[in-house]
Amino acid sequence: MIYLDNAATTAPDREAFLKAAQFSQEHYLNPSAQYGGEVSAALKEARGSILEKIADPAQFELVFTSGGTEADNQALLSCGRRNAVISAGEHAAVYEAGLQLKSAGVELRLAPIEKDGGVNEEKLLALVDDKTSLVSVVHVNNETGAVNDIFGLARRVKEKNPRCAFHSDGVQAFGKLPVRLTKDVDLYSVSAHKIGGLKGTGALIKRKSFALQPLLRGGGQEGNLRSGTENVLGILDFAYAAEKKFKTLEADAARLRVCRERLWQSLDEKFYVRFSPESGSPYILAVSARGLRGEILQRLAAERGLIVGTGSACSSKKPFSRVLEACGHQKEILNGVLRLSFSPETTEEETVLAAQTLNAVAAELGARIG
Amino acid sequence: MIYLDNAATTAPDREAFLKAAQFSQEHYLNPSAQYGGEVSAALKEARGSILEKIADPAQFELVFTSGGTEADNQALLSCGRRNAVISAGEHAAVYEAGLQLKSAGVELRLAPIEKDGGVNEEKLLALVDDKTSLVSVVHVNNETGAVNDIFGLARRVKEKNPRCAFHSDGVQAFGKLPVRLTKDVDLYSVSAHKIGGLKGTGALIKRKSFALQPLLRGGGQEGNLRSGTENVLGILDFAYAAEKKFKTLEADAARLRVCRERLWQSLDEKFYVRFSPESGSPYILAVSARGLRGEILQRLAAERGLIVGTGSACSSKKPFSRVLEACGHQKEILNGVLRLSFSPETTEEETVLAAQTLNAVAAELGARIG
Repeated sequence: MIYLDNAATTAPDREAFLKAAQFSQEHYLNPSAQYGGEVSAALKEARGSILEKIADPAQFELVFTSGGTEADNQALLSCGRRNAVISAGEHAAVYEAGLQLKSAGVELRLAPIEKDGGVNEEKLLALVDDKTSLVSVVHVNNETGAVNDIFGLARRVKEKNPRCAFHSDGVQAFGKLPVRLTKDVDLYSVSAHKIGGLKGTGALIKRKSFALQPLLRGGGQEGNLRSGTENVLGILDFAYAAEKKFKTLEADAARLRVCRERLWQSLDEKFYVRFSPESGSPYILAVSARGLRGEILQRLAAERGLIVGTGSACSSKKPFSRVLEACGHQKEILNGVLRLSFSPETTEEETVLAAQTLNAVAAELGARIG
Repeated sequence: MIYLDNAATTAPDREAFLKAAQFSQEHYLNPSAQYGGEVSAALKEARGSILEKIADPAQFELVFTSGGTEADNQALLSCGRRNAVISAGEHAAVYEAGLQLKSAGVELRLAPIEKDGGVNEEKLLALVDDKTSLVSVVHVNNETGAVNDIFGLARRVKEKNPRCAFHSDGVQAFGKLPVRLTKDVDLYSVSAHKIGGLKGTGALIKRKSFALQPLLRGGGQEGNLRSGTENVLGILDFAYAAEKKFKTLEADAARLRVCRERLWQSLDEKFYVRFSPESGSPYILAVSARGLRGEILQRLAAERGLIVGTGSACSSKKPFSRVLEACGHQKEILNGVLRLSFSPETTEEETVLAAQTLNAVAAELGARIG
């Protein structure tokens, strides 16, 4: 089997899992208990280890959540007041939280995106005024891989309105691209299972002086910002998996960029058009088999041992992608979307074989529908 | 080491963990993906297996959450409108969510509790009127073990106001007491790590026709009631651990009732008074060393290899227990609280040894402070 849907979820890192499993099975005490010092020390170490990978621990802190979705929801719900600006390229977790703000009376402003999925910076900035309490822009578009310059954007947003919060969903960037949070970024969401960790763990990284509101209230864990007994296994596993990913981050990215282009070059232009920009994340290549149905191609490919995505797995129940539609693509293109996404374990040979399979299934389906 | 703080968290069931770990490591695909059928089938089976333990699957359904806290928060925030009635004996996850409702303009009415922690039914019912949108009463008080008759209460609440939602936090009841949800209970929260599962997994069980609102929005998982990639490992482990607990539930409860009384009888009445009613959960015995400090006794006991709680681990940062204070106890009693809580693995010998240790540390501390 060749697995090219790593943006949906990745294979768990076995070494990280065994290490975290052993600790959490042996040290099962409640980290909030007075006698739970060993467990809370391990959580503290994991927290510091993940945080320092992308931010200065003197300026930022980290709140563990049940995943990227919770982190995104907490960020948005914490900041919505008069008006909030999000891009049309946001993940459903940001977009749906935005709609919730809207139904609570916040004016939701949607910044348009370009053909490749990247946000139109000027149009976004034009939507920011002195009543804007939040801007949220995804770091790496999870459907096309387009990388938004969130640091430049955050700076310009703050120049226009210094009191406006800036959040970015960094789920597809963390552990894949070099990231260093700047002082203009108030909130940044990350997830464990996209980089070899477990499903059910994530974090919201925040600027220390930023007044985040809790979404879950109760026992006061996570500095009163996220109540609920800590997911010790998931958190430790996240830290161990991240540790490994960051060691080879730049080399992996460089190699996967080559794989991505090799895959694209091996796809038959008769069938496939490309969404993903060359400057985008090396981990994602979105294409469309014009006039064909992505779901059918996906099924035919799976029968031949190739797993690919058709868009965000999270929103796979919708007819076609809201984000790709916002890119301005026509229906015949939207119907044929396939998302090929990689991991550091992906080999160049796999990407070439994948292209051959994709060419074969497109030819087969094209012939079948005449 | 003798571990008697099982109400804070329990030792993970090794067999359940290995089984869940093996599946989730081998089948790591995203259950929301079209090709993720094997994983989503496993989740479906786990969902049905947990649900049928305490409810009729024709009448009820189950939403997986990141734990009891999230389940409680979702229940409360989903139902707060004009006024909401909760008992003074609620876990922090319900109480703090209630305070959030209050700050959003809902009138929060607190029903008083008795000396043993059980809710005063008549006083609670007197607070319910035709503007009440929610009543929430904990099933087993997590600090004293008092068991509230939530089924009788729910019936009487519905007689008074059929449109009022009834929620119960069942975290300390599920897998420990025989429970069968009746049609008057709309929402019921459960947690995995209190019965040998992993921290970070729980569920909100709901009456099928009840209009629950999501707390986390995004990809639409859990029937659009709880977005976020499913915590496959935690969910499967929860189902396997529950399967085991329910097999011996009644026998365990009967045996632990004997252990609990044996422990109480072995405690020196010179030092200890008892909060927990005989009719309460056999899993919890709350006592107080009058005039002594519970935290110091806890530390002295830990030095002798006995782990006990001082109250809810979740709120261990507060000076003393809000719930026990609401029981009407004086400060000198509140300061000396110890919570001894059991698991099916607890032996009678351990409870007797624990009593000896508790007598010794109380004598030592009593002598020291003169």
